[in-house]
Amino acid sequence: MVCMPDIYDKILSLGKRRGIIYPSYEIYGGKTGFFDYGPLGSLLKHNLEEAWRSLYIIKEGCMEVVTPVVTPFEILKASGHVDKFLDVIFTCQKCSSSFKAPDILNKEVTLPEAGEAIKKGITCPECDGQLTAEEVHLMFETSIGPTKKQPAFLRPETAQGIFIDFYNLYRFFRQKLPFGIVQVGKGFRNEVSPRQGIIRLREFSMAEAEIFFDPSHKDHPRFSQVKHEQLHILPAGKKDIKTSLQEAIKNKIIGNQILAYYLAITQKFIISAGIDAQKIRFRQHASTEMAHYANECWDAEIFTQRFGWIECVGIADRSAHDLQSHMNATDADLTAFHRFDHPHKEKKKLVKVKMDELGPRYKDKAGFIKKQLESMSPPKSGDITVVLDGKSLVIDPSCYDIVEEEVSLEGQHFIPHVIEPSHGIDRILYCILEHNYQEVEKEGEMYTLLSLPYKIAPIPVGVFPLINKDGLPQVAYDIEQSLRQQGFLAFYDDSGSIGRRYARMDEIGTPFCITIDHQTLTDDTVTIRDRDTTQQERIKKANVKAYLDKKFFSSEKRF
Amino acid sequence: MVCMPDIYDKILSLGKRRGIIYPSYEIYGGKTGFFDYGPLGSLLKHNLEEAWRSLYIIKEGCMEVVTPVVTPFEILKASGHVDKFLDVIFTCQKCSSSFKAPDILNKEVTLPEAGEAIKKGITCPECDGQLTAEEVHLMFETSIGPTKKQPAFLRPETAQGIFIDFYNLYRFFRQKLPFGIVQVGKGFRNEVSPRQGIIRLREFSMAEAEIFFDPSHKDHPRFSQVKHEQLHILPAGKKDIKTSLQEAIKNKIIGNQILAYYLAITQKFIISAGIDAQKIRFRQHASTEMAHYANECWDAEIFTQRFGWIECVGIADRSAHDLQSHMNATDADLTAFHRFDHPHKEKKKLVKVKMDELGPRYKDKAGFIKKQLESMSPPKSGDITVVLDGKSLVIDPSCYDIVEEEVSLEGQHFIPHVIEPSHGIDRILYCILEHNYQEVEKEGEMYTLLSLPYKIAPIPVGVFPLINKDGLPQVAYDIEQSLRQQGFLAFYDDSGSIGRRYARMDEIGTPFCITIDHQTLTDDTVTIRDRDTTQQERIKKANVKAYLDKKFFSSEKRF
Repeated sequence: MVCMPDIYDKILSLGKRRGIIYPSYEIYGGKTGFFDYGPLGSLLKHNLEEAWRSLYIIKEGCMEVVTPVVTPFEILKASGHVDKFLDVIFTCQKCSSSFKAPDILNKEVTLPEAGEAIKKGITCPECDGQLTAEEVHLMFETSIGPTKKQPAFLRPETAQGIFIDFYNLYRFFRQKLPFGIVQVGKGFRNEVSPRQGIIRLREFSMAEAEIFFDPSHKDHPRFSQVKHEQLHILPAGKKDIKTSLQEAIKNKIIGNQILAYYLAITQKFIISAGIDAQKIRFRQHASTEMAHYANECWDAEIFTQRFGWIECVGIADRSAHDLQSHMNATDADLTAFHRFDHPHKEKKKLVKVKMDELGPRYKDKAGFIKKQLESMSPPKSGDITVVLDGKSLVIDPSCYDIVEEEVSLEGQHFIPHVIEPSHGIDRILYCILEHNYQEVEKEGEMYTLLSLPYKIAPIPVGVFPLINKDGLPQVAYDIEQSLRQQGFLAFYDDSGSIGRRYARMDEIGTPFCITIDHQTLTDDTVTIRDRDTTQQERIKKANVKAYLDKKFFSSEKRF
Repeated sequence: MVCMPDIYDKILSLGKRRGIIYPSYEIYGGKTGFFDYGPLGSLLKHNLEEAWRSLYIIKEGCMEVVTPVVTPFEILKASGHVDKFLDVIFTCQKCSSSFKAPDILNKEVTLPEAGEAIKKGITCPECDGQLTAEEVHLMFETSIGPTKKQPAFLRPETAQGIFIDFYNLYRFFRQKLPFGIVQVGKGFRNEVSPRQGIIRLREFSMAEAEIFFDPSHKDHPRFSQVKHEQLHILPAGKKDIKTSLQEAIKNKIIGNQILAYYLAITQKFIISAGIDAQKIRFRQHASTEMAHYANECWDAEIFTQRFGWIECVGIADRSAHDLQSHMNATDADLTAFHRFDHPHKEKKKLVKVKMDELGPRYKDKAGFIKKQLESMSPPKSGDITVVLDGKSLVIDPSCYDIVEEEVSLEGQHFIPHVIEPSHGIDRILYCILEHNYQEVEKEGEMYTLLSLPYKIAPIPVGVFPLINKDGLPQVAYDIEQSLRQQGFLAFYDDSGSIGRRYARMDEIGTPFCITIDHQTLTDDTVTIRDRDTTQQERIKKANVKAYLDKKFFSSEKRF
């Protein structure tokens, strides 16, 4: 290992050279905030997302949904995004450059704080011009229909598509809580002049889970499995500490077991995907910093050389905020029902109509009024009013009695709460590349190696003929094809020296390389080389598949 | 099997009830042209896309990319979409309803044809009002940046993201043709009042492959493997026929082997995914109907009860259209290089400057003029002009000679051609549901069964305790969890009679159900029931995983 002065540039350069990531729209001069995944990057991303699905869907028992990117205005108005998903931006009056607050002040600020900073004399970092500050929302705007245009946005998160389907999803889970719904897909933030390359994207890939639960039961059934996990945490306004989750709950640093459980599996997941365990911390949001929908939020931050600690997963307690907002906006019933073990007997005040008084006064309307009166809870004091022919009508107290009766309640409705672990796939991927990037010296030459976990590596196995004659290429090609037929993305390569071929595969993190040599022709054996140990084993050709199966198809691989 | 008068409604109803598909934004009154995939629908879609990736990436050797949805204006201007991706729409002057041509005239028409139809007296199908016709482009508009707004669209196809990365991708494939690049993701068409439910979406999932090849080599290396495949084809302007691909090529019905090869694997793929082989035909586009980028196009159409034949896969010969367009717009080099086996000797006319004539006339400009002259191919006749200080300047023929010399050419640059199979995932999925939907009578009761191929079925296996006592639930639960740990999405169910549970799993196409009964407690065996035969086998509990592996992990399953 040698010193790596600018690993970000090295990874971008490796990414470009080997088809991992490309700046988007490059031949058109590029657009900041957009990146493409090339052939190997797409496999890497796919493998990471599949590992995430395997954890959340197969192991944790969540189910996935796929909802649209194009989201009508009403939904994001109701959720609060139109009015509260805002950023303070500074614009230079001289050169017209725009900046987010952290670009100038190294932190998020409110609009009044931005005004103060301008008064104190901050100027444009590019031309020293006069700045102004304003609040803008960060959603891409569009409209539905080419003629009659209905305003819409590109979703800023995948979560809203889940919340508005709550009724259907609750029914899918047979009206039982808790349950979890995930979505893996694109999210969009129309950033102001993003300046941090792949770290701040305008279009990004997210993997979000929404865990719905009864707020009177914030214990998690599997908490005991994770309670001894050690986390590096940074509570809001306090010093960072190492603590077990059990202690964190006991000391009221983390609000509840469900939130704590998802902190634990977030840490386990990113470590299993290749993040250096020493470079993870969980930072709590200050109350001034939290998203409008959250009442407790922890970021899993990962350390990077150039950008320092960056937020890669947000784990938020969204309480009943979103379901309540959509209920308010639509009158849909997004409650869950808690059935009591035994019906509760409750005393309840009821209105009992005296028809001999009501009938003569209201004639043919009396039946309609009776129905209204008997369906209402009587007010604590004062007159009772009904609606008749669109007008309010005070009913004379002589027309009814208020009685107390014992009723039997089967259960009660409530709005579920939500814990949301939300993963930024692109940032996690960048961090995986950075933490697994190694420069190794071998026989006097420097070369690069990605020590990716097997399940994430884009190409699991290379297949090489030692030399390009004596029938070796055909044998190698047949092995490559046979592995592909059996589902392994094998990569055939016969170009350059064998050392050069190993080096090329190391550079993209391929765990194993199979070489066919003259001995293969006589005894049907091949050599198989391990990326990390560089050791070679000789095994029977017929056992290659079983060998790789054993190495790769640990329980985590399949989905 | 009984008569199914309105299978579309039945599938939508099943879809809603069992969490396959939901109309989007339902609690907000819904938006036509958008659908959600529920928990089972998402698995179905995921499995279909994984089967597609397995075919195109692992078996066919293509590589995937992931490029943005938000596409700057310039790119879709260059590709021709801004000016040519247009639809004729009719708008009623009385009720303001808008209609696509097929909604009114049962076919696509040009703008002049639409005008003719209006003159002939067609009126609004909803209110009989006066219609007007216009051309609109069908892209969702947006802009990049919340302040300085740069116009952009949501991509109408995933293909453009591939074309503009051609140089990087060509380098990834070590400058060798042919190669294929795929992309699986969202596409967008801002349809005018879509009226066909899930068949015409404004936001849809596509799986596209772009196969780049040298147009002087239109043979496909694996054509011989498919040449005897029988296809039901409908050539433009002719009667439909059944033919082998070999015959279709011979009779010049299909333009080249590469196109024909992708027709064949398209058919194989959709059949393996569950489409009824009798309900597939390949219809050739008439030249008036083709997209602006295509010079030969075949649609794989699938027959549906309500909508008749619908386009589900488009297989287009895009020739050099897209790469040429982006080269014109950017000056990027999107050519490939064909290296000759032996350098070609060619005679070439060159300009040879006579400095003793040129020098005295142009003094210090002479060197600059010489450089221009000697780098150009001389015109067949007439004067030679150079540019000096921004002005054209005719050079006197006495200043140069035109000589013929033999030069050695290593190879030549050319623009690759492209064959594109483009799959509409949502439509294929709907057709799979329709073709596998069965109503079965059993013991006097009707129930529904989805005969989905194993690799597509959302839940591979159900696990039930026969009764909810004597420890059976725990044994069943342990089997379910163990299968999940090993990557099988098993579904535990202990609710209702065992017959009811089988029926619920049949309804969502689950191929196998495992039941734990009292005998399990004594001899560690379980019963395993086959969806299609309804036969039950008794096997050792320890062999369950191997049994399922054998049934599911055929070569097609893994990716």
